[in-house]
Amino acid sequence: MQNKRLMQQLNFLKEIDKLKTIFRRTNLIADPTRFENTAEHSWHLAMFAMVLTEYANTAVDQLKVIKMVLLHDVVEIDAGDTFCYDEEGRQDKHERELRAAERIFALLPDDQAVEIRALWDEFEAGETDEAKFAVCLDRLHPLLHNYTNGGGSWKRHHILRVQVEERMRPVVKGSELIAQFVNDLLDDAVANEMLRVS
Amino acid sequence: MQNKRLMQQLNFLKEIDKLKTIFRRTNLIADPTRFENTAEHSWHLAMFAMVLTEYANTAVDQLKVIKMVLLHDVVEIDAGDTFCYDEEGRQDKHERELRAAERIFALLPDDQAVEIRALWDEFEAGETDEAKFAVCLDRLHPLLHNYTNGGGSWKRHHILRVQVEERMRPVVKGSELIAQFVNDLLDDAVANEMLRVS
Repeated sequence: MQNKRLMQQLNFLKEIDKLKTIFRRTNLIADPTRFENTAEHSWHLAMFAMVLTEYANTAVDQLKVIKMVLLHDVVEIDAGDTFCYDEEGRQDKHERELRAAERIFALLPDDQAVEIRALWDEFEAGETDEAKFAVCLDRLHPLLHNYTNGGGSWKRHHILRVQVEERMRPVVKGSELIAQFVNDLLDDAVANEMLRVS
Repeated sequence: MQNKRLMQQLNFLKEIDKLKTIFRRTNLIADPTRFENTAEHSWHLAMFAMVLTEYANTAVDQLKVIKMVLLHDVVEIDAGDTFCYDEEGRQDKHERELRAAERIFALLPDDQAVEIRALWDEFEAGETDEAKFAVCLDRLHPLLHNYTNGGGSWKRHHILRVQVEERMRPVVKGSELIAQFVNDLLDDAVANEMLRVS
């Protein structure tokens, strides 16, 4: 079959298979002996968006939120996963991810490359209602994993509550109710020695 | 925080983390040394739905298609993955998956349990335009993996072209163009000895 457009799309879809080989610092809930990869994380986040959209501060376009969370980490194929408490690694994170976005989304036909790049930029900027809520879910997700695993990467990397609070700062912009839940959960994590205060 | 509804939703979201531990018979494209798990598969399928919806035979509600592919295999948490060419395993597959759907979706608040169960039933029945297209993508996905990997599970399990064709029968109901692509790809797979005809 000579269908250039379809071939471009399938090449993109084959390329992003690599996201299944990018590992995060978060352990699975179902199997704490291994780290979660970014493809699994993205699926799980999309399920969060399916189930929790009612808590967004404003009415949001659920399709847009789901698309954003599905594709927000595709750039990690080239840029790798940067641990959120790695101050050094975070310095050039955005630059590395920009270069990755240039390469990977350009595999698609032009119109789709533009559409998907715009969604990725919107998520990164975190300014629209949909982006705020998508970012909120992206912060909630590893928190829930670490808490359920009795501390997880917080314990392993000696993370302090103040660092997690800093990381959770954008949550309230997406959902005040989820921000309240996060705060209560951090109280509990400290009380149960999953998280240190100093 | 005492918010029963949110707690039910988060319990569901924690439960489905188990999908990351359910392995399929399809190898990754990016790392053919290991099998794909069902959470990764579901993410990848949702990306297929994002990129390929233009090929559906009729205009489809993309949000509905994406939701269906995200949740269609959640039942494998209890029912396990049944290899599509395992005739014996397939005999009680639907019954096992029905029991799983009863248990897992019931973790959600009633209104969401009903909504998500309806989407799952719709995918399983494969009769609406959205379900036909979602099923089409679900069949295309492992085909592309096996072909890209030089035969993959076809070779390993001595699968014949006629068996793959039978498995691909629903594709044309979702997309005539993708069905044509699948047919051409199978010709090529046979010509390149990835797939046997007898």
